[in-house]
Amino acid sequence: MSQQQNDFIKKCFELAVKAAGFVSPNPMVGALLVKQDKIIGEGYHQKYGGAHAEIIAINSATEALTDSTLYCNLEPCCHTHKQTPPCVPQIIKAGIKKVVISNLDPNPAVSGKGVQQLLNAGIEVITRVSENEGQELNKFYFKFISNAKPYISIKIAQSIDGKITEEKNKQTWLTGEEAQKYVHQQRAIYDAVLVGAETINIDNPELNVRLVDGRNPKRIILDGNLSLNLNSKILKAADIENTWIITCNGIDNEKLFKLKEKGVRILQMPADQLNHISLIKLLDELAKQKISSLFIEGGSNIFSQFITEKLFDELIILQAPVVLGKGLSAISGSVNISLNTIDTVKLGKDIKMSFRKCD
Amino acid sequence: MSQQQNDFIKKCFELAVKAAGFVSPNPMVGALLVKQDKIIGEGYHQKYGGAHAEIIAINSATEALTDSTLYCNLEPCCHTHKQTPPCVPQIIKAGIKKVVISNLDPNPAVSGKGVQQLLNAGIEVITRVSENEGQELNKFYFKFISNAKPYISIKIAQSIDGKITEEKNKQTWLTGEEAQKYVHQQRAIYDAVLVGAETINIDNPELNVRLVDGRNPKRIILDGNLSLNLNSKILKAADIENTWIITCNGIDNEKLFKLKEKGVRILQMPADQLNHISLIKLLDELAKQKISSLFIEGGSNIFSQFITEKLFDELIILQAPVVLGKGLSAISGSVNISLNTIDTVKLGKDIKMSFRKCD
Repeated sequence: MSQQQNDFIKKCFELAVKAAGFVSPNPMVGALLVKQDKIIGEGYHQKYGGAHAEIIAINSATEALTDSTLYCNLEPCCHTHKQTPPCVPQIIKAGIKKVVISNLDPNPAVSGKGVQQLLNAGIEVITRVSENEGQELNKFYFKFISNAKPYISIKIAQSIDGKITEEKNKQTWLTGEEAQKYVHQQRAIYDAVLVGAETINIDNPELNVRLVDGRNPKRIILDGNLSLNLNSKILKAADIENTWIITCNGIDNEKLFKLKEKGVRILQMPADQLNHISLIKLLDELAKQKISSLFIEGGSNIFSQFITEKLFDELIILQAPVVLGKGLSAISGSVNISLNTIDTVKLGKDIKMSFRKCD
Repeated sequence: MSQQQNDFIKKCFELAVKAAGFVSPNPMVGALLVKQDKIIGEGYHQKYGGAHAEIIAINSATEALTDSTLYCNLEPCCHTHKQTPPCVPQIIKAGIKKVVISNLDPNPAVSGKGVQQLLNAGIEVITRVSENEGQELNKFYFKFISNAKPYISIKIAQSIDGKITEEKNKQTWLTGEEAQKYVHQQRAIYDAVLVGAETINIDNPELNVRLVDGRNPKRIILDGNLSLNLNSKILKAADIENTWIITCNGIDNEKLFKLKEKGVRILQMPADQLNHISLIKLLDELAKQKISSLFIEGGSNIFSQFITEKLFDELIILQAPVVLGKGLSAISGSVNISLNTIDTVKLGKDIKMSFRKCD
């Protein structure tokens, strides 16, 4: 693979990521049209339901497309029965000579078929250019399409000795501004954040995006017993329809009524006798609701459940430079799980570490 | 300060650090002689008791030293009553025109006086070039000279949830080869490693340098009750005189005799009724024994005591990509201490994080 191909595909990634948070559960896609080493058109999929990157690039072209090369980080689509017409016929019709892509589309309706149709039309196709970066870019989409489950990241802000608060039922603010900004950046790209009701009742967070530009995620509160404080800030959000409460089937009391009245969405799920909701069933339900990515923010019980059941893809530790000694551990129970280290970086006074579950 | 000055001082640091582990409790010092932008001589203090960097550089000079500049990371010495004659008179005698240094020597017998003697002889002196890097290079020396205590680093290899073993009294091997190499590199530069007897009895470590080139540190075992297993590997070391056991005054039993017979050195210290040795008194004693740097490797009780009493300079976490959930916490007790983050870096599959105690 030539360096030039890698560079143009990298530019597609840069275009694609501009739509982070806005195209889900679709993938992020950027496209470039290049003729004689010159970029003559570009585009990216900007919004769920909107035009695809390839078509925007074709429409933006400043020259005739004969003998041009299309760079695109994902295999162009060829399937119908969706919101937009397929791209492959339009690529063929435009007279494009060569198509360079990063990833085959894992969607079985496309996977390899888009490439085949291009080849059948006499177009040269090069695949798997910067494939790993492409997959990383669209990790939410790849997980969602392949497993019908959201991509799950667990974010834990903790002390060096693994504690999240000095004392149970009391908030301890551990991380600094840069780490908090990072959290807001993540909220702006994940479809939803999820916390337990205890976290709402103790920390009273808003779980929205304030420290950076970006759209708010859906806010999902796991609350089997409906213990949520009715005066929580999260119940006063302007976009209250994006606050979802997950509780048990059969709970049908006054509080449920009051919550509905506030405009929150209630999802009722099967649970055991202790009102513990099955996490697997919850994830199936969230996938049905087109939640393709989930950012789990607390607290200790939620962390421990998702980790013990191995229901996560990434573990993100925001390590504050503090030793508490005593306090509430972020994770408890019999876990013993090995992960792959992705990276580590200083975020102001804190350190971010990312790990991924081993396959 | 010119870039050229910084570059030459940096070269002094590179020379100086070649002697890491061999000059303690002296500082590491490198020296360059420069004439018309050309290096005409260089040297470094290679061994405790050996010639100073400045003198080696002067003796190595390939040209006459008139009009030359001496670069040296530490203020040249001017005091007598020590193993080597003072450097300042020899610098003056050599006809050197200018001296550029990084740090003033914190040793009160020198501090500023060396510079003053050079100035009095009509030599131009520039100080504080790359001062912070110089201080970092000689952090052991600066601490030892200023506080009459060793520089103390606590190294903890732990899981993401702050555990050092899956089960008390059982070893769990958490970190990989690169992290272990890092530990051996540190052992090769600290004067001594320190562990509790429990760590010896459970892990049976050798605490020497095997994975990298370097000299072995002294191995200090804190053992108030003399619970050390007599078959430990550490008691079979070829350099057994470098294994020191710290125990209580008044213990005078058969085991003490057997240990002495093996050739280890026994230091007896005051202790409380539970045979807990006063750490402050221990550090005073180690300083008297010219231990200027101490690398603390375990276990949980030792970590917790040193951290709770704030008797450390650096905390180094080797974070294995593992969640244990249950197990023995690295640190326990009522600590609540804030640190400064120094840096973070991937070491193979693990992550190293360094923190420093706030002033």
